[in-house]
Amino acid sequence: MTVQEILEQVSSKALSVEEAQRLLAETGYEEMGYAKLDTDRKRRTGFAEVVYCSGKTEEQLLNIFSRIYGEEGEVLGTRATFAQYEALRPHFPELNYMENARILKMEKPDKEHIGNIAVCTAGTADIPVAEEAALTAEFFGTKVTRVYDVGVSGIHRLLSRLEEVQSANCVVAVAGMEGAMASVLGGLVRNPVIAVPTSVGYGASLNGLSALLTMINSCANGVAVVNIDNGYGAGYLAAQINRLAVRR
Amino acid sequence: MTVQEILEQVSSKALSVEEAQRLLAETGYEEMGYAKLDTDRKRRTGFAEVVYCSGKTEEQLLNIFSRIYGEEGEVLGTRATFAQYEALRPHFPELNYMENARILKMEKPDKEHIGNIAVCTAGTADIPVAEEAALTAEFFGTKVTRVYDVGVSGIHRLLSRLEEVQSANCVVAVAGMEGAMASVLGGLVRNPVIAVPTSVGYGASLNGLSALLTMINSCANGVAVVNIDNGYGAGYLAAQINRLAVRR
Amino acid sequence: MTVQEILEQVSSKALSVEEAQRLLAETGYEEMGYAKLDTDRKRRTGFAEVVYCSGKTEEQLLNIFSRIYGEEGEVLGTRATFAQYEALRPHFPELNYMENARILKMEKPDKEHIGNIAVCTAGTADIPVAEEAALTAEFFGTKVTRVYDVGVSGIHRLLSRLEEVQSANCVVAVAGMEGAMASVLGGLVRNPVIAVPTSVGYGASLNGLSALLTMINSCANGVAVVNIDNGYGAGYLAAQINRLAVRR
Amino acid sequence: MTVQEILEQVSSKALSVEEAQRLLAETGYEEMGYAKLDTDRKRRTGFAEVVYCSGKTEEQLLNIFSRIYGEEGEVLGTRATFAQYEALRPHFPELNYMENARILKMEKPDKEHIGNIAVCTAGTADIPVAEEAALTAEFFGTKVTRVYDVGVSGIHRLLSRLEEVQSANCVVAVAGMEGAMASVLGGLVRNPVIAVPTSVGYGASLNGLSALLTMINSCANGVAVVNIDNGYGAGYLAAQINRLAVRR
Amino acid sequence: MTVQEILEQVSSKALSVEEAQRLLAETGYEEMGYAKLDTDRKRRTGFAEVVYCSGKTEEQLLNIFSRIYGEEGEVLGTRATFAQYEALRPHFPELNYMENARILKMEKPDKEHIGNIAVCTAGTADIPVAEEAALTAEFFGTKVTRVYDVGVSGIHRLLSRLEEVQSANCVVAVAGMEGAMASVLGGLVRNPVIAVPTSVGYGASLNGLSALLTMINSCANGVAVVNIDNGYGAGYLAAQINRLAVRR
Amino acid sequence: MTVQEILEQVSSKALSVEEAQRLLAETGYEEMGYAKLDTDRKRRTGFAEVVYCSGKTEEQLLNIFSRIYGEEGEVLGTRATFAQYEALRPHFPELNYMENARILKMEKPDKEHIGNIAVCTAGTADIPVAEEAALTAEFFGTKVTRVYDVGVSGIHRLLSRLEEVQSANCVVAVAGMEGAMASVLGGLVRNPVIAVPTSVGYGASLNGLSALLTMINSCANGVAVVNIDNGYGAGYLAAQINRLAVRR
Amino acid sequence: MTVQEILEQVSSKALSVEEAQRLLAETGYEEMGYAKLDTDRKRRTGFAEVVYCSGKTEEQLLNIFSRIYGEEGEVLGTRATFAQYEALRPHFPELNYMENARILKMEKPDKEHIGNIAVCTAGTADIPVAEEAALTAEFFGTKVTRVYDVGVSGIHRLLSRLEEVQSANCVVAVAGMEGAMASVLGGLVRNPVIAVPTSVGYGASLNGLSALLTMINSCANGVAVVNIDNGYGAGYLAAQINRLAVRR
Amino acid sequence: MTVQEILEQVSSKALSVEEAQRLLAETGYEEMGYAKLDTDRKRRTGFAEVVYCSGKTEEQLLNIFSRIYGEEGEVLGTRATFAQYEALRPHFPELNYMENARILKMEKPDKEHIGNIAVCTAGTADIPVAEEAALTAEFFGTKVTRVYDVGVSGIHRLLSRLEEVQSANCVVAVAGMEGAMASVLGGLVRNPVIAVPTSVGYGASLNGLSALLTMINSCANGVAVVNIDNGYGAGYLAAQINRLAVRR
Repeated sequence: MTVQEILEQVSSKALSVEEAQRLLAETGYEEMGYAKLDTDRKRRTGFAEVVYCSGKTEEQLLNIFSRIYGEEGEVLGTRATFAQYEALRPHFPELNYMENARILKMEKPDKEHIGNIAVCTAGTADIPVAEEAALTAEFFGTKVTRVYDVGVSGIHRLLSRLEEVQSANCVVAVAGMEGAMASVLGGLVRNPVIAVPTSVGYGASLNGLSALLTMINSCANGVAVVNIDNGYGAGYLAAQINRLAVRR
Repeated sequence: MTVQEILEQVSSKALSVEEAQRLLAETGYEEMGYAKLDTDRKRRTGFAEVVYCSGKTEEQLLNIFSRIYGEEGEVLGTRATFAQYEALRPHFPELNYMENARILKMEKPDKEHIGNIAVCTAGTADIPVAEEAALTAEFFGTKVTRVYDVGVSGIHRLLSRLEEVQSANCVVAVAGMEGAMASVLGGLVRNPVIAVPTSVGYGASLNGLSALLTMINSCANGVAVVNIDNGYGAGYLAAQINRLAVRR
Repeated sequence: MTVQEILEQVSSKALSVEEAQRLLAETGYEEMGYAKLDTDRKRRTGFAEVVYCSGKTEEQLLNIFSRIYGEEGEVLGTRATFAQYEALRPHFPELNYMENARILKMEKPDKEHIGNIAVCTAGTADIPVAEEAALTAEFFGTKVTRVYDVGVSGIHRLLSRLEEVQSANCVVAVAGMEGAMASVLGGLVRNPVIAVPTSVGYGASLNGLSALLTMINSCANGVAVVNIDNGYGAGYLAAQINRLAVRR
Repeated sequence: MTVQEILEQVSSKALSVEEAQRLLAETGYEEMGYAKLDTDRKRRTGFAEVVYCSGKTEEQLLNIFSRIYGEEGEVLGTRATFAQYEALRPHFPELNYMENARILKMEKPDKEHIGNIAVCTAGTADIPVAEEAALTAEFFGTKVTRVYDVGVSGIHRLLSRLEEVQSANCVVAVAGMEGAMASVLGGLVRNPVIAVPTSVGYGASLNGLSALLTMINSCANGVAVVNIDNGYGAGYLAAQINRLAVRR
Repeated sequence: MTVQEILEQVSSKALSVEEAQRLLAETGYEEMGYAKLDTDRKRRTGFAEVVYCSGKTEEQLLNIFSRIYGEEGEVLGTRATFAQYEALRPHFPELNYMENARILKMEKPDKEHIGNIAVCTAGTADIPVAEEAALTAEFFGTKVTRVYDVGVSGIHRLLSRLEEVQSANCVVAVAGMEGAMASVLGGLVRNPVIAVPTSVGYGASLNGLSALLTMINSCANGVAVVNIDNGYGAGYLAAQINRLAVRR
Repeated sequence: MTVQEILEQVSSKALSVEEAQRLLAETGYEEMGYAKLDTDRKRRTGFAEVVYCSGKTEEQLLNIFSRIYGEEGEVLGTRATFAQYEALRPHFPELNYMENARILKMEKPDKEHIGNIAVCTAGTADIPVAEEAALTAEFFGTKVTRVYDVGVSGIHRLLSRLEEVQSANCVVAVAGMEGAMASVLGGLVRNPVIAVPTSVGYGASLNGLSALLTMINSCANGVAVVNIDNGYGAGYLAAQINRLAVRR
Repeated sequence: MTVQEILEQVSSKALSVEEAQRLLAETGYEEMGYAKLDTDRKRRTGFAEVVYCSGKTEEQLLNIFSRIYGEEGEVLGTRATFAQYEALRPHFPELNYMENARILKMEKPDKEHIGNIAVCTAGTADIPVAEEAALTAEFFGTKVTRVYDVGVSGIHRLLSRLEEVQSANCVVAVAGMEGAMASVLGGLVRNPVIAVPTSVGYGASLNGLSALLTMINSCANGVAVVNIDNGYGAGYLAAQINRLAVRR
Repeated sequence: MTVQEILEQVSSKALSVEEAQRLLAETGYEEMGYAKLDTDRKRRTGFAEVVYCSGKTEEQLLNIFSRIYGEEGEVLGTRATFAQYEALRPHFPELNYMENARILKMEKPDKEHIGNIAVCTAGTADIPVAEEAALTAEFFGTKVTRVYDVGVSGIHRLLSRLEEVQSANCVVAVAGMEGAMASVLGGLVRNPVIAVPTSVGYGASLNGLSALLTMINSCANGVAVVNIDNGYGAGYLAAQINRLAVRR
């Protein structure tokens, strides 16, 4: 019930003041004891809740997956281990596991992918984070172009694929070490660049902190940054931006 | 000349091989000695070059403003001092200066503002950064709703203006101190949130670094971050996203 | 109007559904353009809003002081400059300025101070922060015992005043440099210790960050920490705790 | 013997000067070779000593548990491993182990829990730290309300349980990632908020340091912070505050 | 084909404009799906591509080694594990593995080593990083003098070998802990010193960050720094400098 | 009165129990309102209290100087400004001010200087900190050898003065930038080296933090570190060590 | 006298053993009281001593300039103020001051500049640091090509001047903000790149620390880094490398 | 041979000039291939070389131990593993291993221990580091008083053992967490305090960095700091100081 519906029922005496007070306080979540499933999220955001699998027990995952799958007919889990996949597989024969992206997925068979984003990586070691971004965006109905291993130590590799990147509604730039690719991309495209620093590197890379600082200080326009290794977050944002670009 | 045009002239012998080599290397900028004006930028990005005034001499500013104003009929300068304004004013009677946002502006009189973004601040001290974002986005033709002083220490102030914020194509969240407002907004809206940490605060705020870390670690989806006090960058990004949302 | 009152008026048709919707969204603040005065705060927290003067214009301060003074009959301003004091004094003859604590104050003449907290400093240079804490707590009706210059480089000074400190409902421990006094106090008293790191020190004191880390890592029980130089915050918390201890 | 008693016996010659000197120097601890049990603590603080189990050998734990249990009839151990539990269980059949909170406990059967504190978490991964806080406070005789998984990415979950939180004598706010929940709570309640940053998160969460900085910089009043993952410390403080609020 | 060749073929109609456009965009790399082999590198830099083995699968390594070995007749791999060595050995009987330097190598039998660089370490624990530098430089045809365990805690050890160090075209200074050797060397030689901080040390060595800061702040002239433990990078640079010094 | 004397008077009834209790609590300091002069310090440490002048008002300084000078016949003040000197001079005609060391001093005319310490600096910019150390040690009766501008970028300068340094009871090593001199000295002498990082440097010197880290990580034995620019602390320590070496 | 000469005179009895001992200890510096002029430096390094003017008194500068100018017939001073220039000018009519590079210089009129290095900047604000590098290298007889304002936000500007950069014996890359230009250059040239982070930027640029980290983590080969804003150090290194490349 | 002896032999023609040159360059170390044993150390420092076992192979350790044991009749090894002990034991039946201090030792049976130092710890978890300090000092002939578990959370435990601590020639203060004990000790004793931060703690203890900062910022006089967990370094320094105090 919306606030308006509640008030209308109060006005028509279909609802007591006390009951209305309780309903106004009640909100869109389902209490599961250890977690509050945010069932209102789809209405608010347009995207259903995604399951962050890391640290959850198999029993918890089974319940949450069943609940969302029952409601939505599809479900996406991030940061999942192979062991979690094996525990869930008997219950969901249609479950897929993308090992390097650590993603568990059941997806509606007829999903349409529209618009276009580009996901770029500086090196091959950045690909798992990029795949998390790409698969997330695809789950939310986005068409994704992958442009991998085009970092700045050999800038010609990036320039040769420039046209594909420039035609995307949003570019996800995934890079570790010094993270310079995000700035170069920001100077070459007209649409937003979402930069994802990765923990790839050693020594003074500080587990990705150096790349994060590089990207935050970008001298190029149109670059914003998400957390280190947060492929999911970048994919989500890119899907939001793509949705704005393609909606009618 | 585009690459295609150059090649066609070579093919038709209108251009020598040597001349074509030189032209292929030549690029879209104008050499000004101390700076290379990026005259190709508008073609690449859709937005003309903006002048970062900080540290530039009055003579340099005068030349750059003249050059861009002559070409574009309008010009935007950020991080400008009042002294710079006073030095330029005799040359450009139509020049405006927004003191708290430190912006210098000459704008086409008939500019249309379309779409909608929301610029929110946590406190009153964050307003100068927010104004830099808002004025930048407006310069690029964006309609802007300002929602100021709605930080989380009194969350009811934000909730009461939620509808306005939820209807924007992009939300710019400007906050210093602990920067928590960005996460709260991220949980409430369906479109991207661009978070701008500010250097407002003292002690362990570390001149904005704490707010930056808060925002980068946001538990909410759809939040990306720009540099501390970088209102311009956030406004630019929001204008990019809004442009995608309203284009035909 | 409370939610219950609104609903009752809806039920009795004294209020339309539309009007009720608007009222439910409307919240306890007063729009002042540049700021939203949190008029609901006293109901929520039991303490009226305090004015953070730093960076506010004289005109803004005048308006806010007038508004709060009119409503509450008293007002407290923190981080105020002498210039701000001089600008406000003509309008409020009863205004007091405590220079080292940077506090502006108009207070009800008959204020009762109850309970007891102790405010301790390690050195004399920590006294301005301590005074901010003490004056804040006193403004909120707390009795305050000051125990200054009792840092650990001469522990006998602290031990000789121990009884006073042990009898307080809450101890505020203000220390810069290495900040060790908070741990020593935590080991000696039965009630909470609110530790305030100060920016007193040089070199590796990192403007108070070292003292903050010392206090956060305290091996003693019952110690919690507020921001560097945040005497106001410590005084507020101590007043909250004292209020719990003395209420009926 | 108190100092007064010693002096009275000296005055009455029941005690020699030398003996009195020795007694004045002697203090409230029991030498165990590897540790000095602080038997004076209960007199000083009102709470008996709690055993920090991490890194202690089974033999050491057995001795310390026996000693405290003999004296107090109950004992609390924090940061205990399952292996430590298994080693102690044969000696203490009534010993309980709370695995996710890593707490070992023998408790008087008839313990009364009075007053009320609220322990809130932002996510499910923060629950172990929250349970350490809650179980500690309960051991010290406090009534605890648990409000879990109410972080700011879905603020309606917190708002729907607000009344419970507002009625507590003290609120413990446990949050990792960006830690924004502490500020939101600080703006909504009248009693102290003890914020516990957790090491939950990844990338720029810096193992909890980001959440700690968020909480230390809180723009809300009445928030103080303890060490990362220090549920015990928060529970202890909350029990102190609650004790002040309920004592006669 | 070079740009000149392409243009000449366009001019002579041997190439269509469209084809020429494609060729101009095409660049010197070979697409391998997961990686873009930079086949243009040798032309640009004079040194063939080196394989960073860390994190690559055995299948990927096999393909890349085959490809480079086929083209160049030799190949160098850094940060290789013994397991990777064992997986590749059956395919390349001539493959060598230097375990402490973690280097895999197949080298032309008749390689000439010219010029001279010196690689110095402060302690024995720095030798693996130094060997990575020395072997890299040797692979690129450089003569290398090793001067190990000559750190500043016994400066006479360094002084006794000074002549050898002073006669080198470039000195690589490898040191952990406080990294002071780089400055001492910088003050004693006439040619460039490439400083490599190592992660050797404990406590406040911060995994090499302290040594890096020491070296970056060197009061001596002619010292530049590479990443922590980056022996490869230092060897590469030293080989570049040596090449300049010996070329005709 | 000592504890023994108090107890004997109690035993002989010369003192009441209450009076004795008060005396036992009373300690060796003199209350001055804003400060507690630690009059017991000389008994405890053998050195009289030194005045940290920074931030003290002229009136406070006048009182403290008068008090100590009256008691001790001499006084040392550190971190003093020229203005403070000028304010005190009319009251103490014998007052001396060492401007670069920022030291105020009145000293007994016949002071004997015994033993020997060496104070070394890496550069000329480190001399003010070194002078603070040297003058402090001299005030406490130590003979001081100054060895300035012998940093590691020209190690021969240090080696040529080695004998003087090696014969000292303690070496104070004052260095900014990378601070390598402390390690070199530690490897060359048999007695303790007290290292003082200075804030001399720029960029990544981080105001002395880099030198501090260098010194803390020293690979040489017998090196301990004090705070950045803390010449006073190093001089004090060196005087303590020298006193041990020369005492009868 | 060299060691060999000393020994030969001892052998021929032209020198006593004691005198020889003294001479062996005596080293190549001139004692000036406050400084030890390193007169041996030119022999060791091939370059005469350069004067770091910052913080030196006018009298000290006058003495040092006179001494070096007398010996070498030229002198270079870095980090000099205009006031220092004005104080020295009356004594040295031929003295030049380059204000933005803060360099004082008297140079032999017939200096030959050989070889070639390139000095590149990312933006116009980096030019002062670049000029310090260029002027230093020129003082040491190097030919310098300046390529300014070619940062990665408009990569075409850099690519259009690539040939000049690729033909240099050494490239100095001067960049602030995110410092990405160093990596792009490293990937494009065959000779060493000396990267100079600058303090240009704001917010999370951390006064150049972010650019330093970017450059240290460079994914490109052949890049080494000097201190923030250390144009002098980079120019010195480039001159060393160029000297190796052009010597006979 | 000393320099004097060499020169005398040259003078008497017992030595050729060439041979003398070589001997002057030759220094007091023994080349072992992977290491340079510093055989001159005992002459320079008065203490024989101590073996840092961490990371050394068993074969290296066997050689080094044999060499030193043969020369000195005793040997001390730090940071040794049990496996290293087991590998060496068959060769040295008299070898002892102190497991918690990780020390390997063969010691002359009749060693006299003179003077007195005190080694204090804040908690029981700091004891391994303290034992490394105590055993090192004892190996160098120092008498050691151990005062363990006297941290500031129960200051009476420290005060009750104060006399023992005050009578020591040097106090080693070993503490983790917030490290406050060092300052308290510094205020209570007359001789030097060597502070050792330990990595004991969690969360914001930053593996000992917080304790290090606390100790470096100590407000007490006479406190200097060594690296985190560096018990060996503190024991060495304390032995140096004690040696000065007891020598005749």
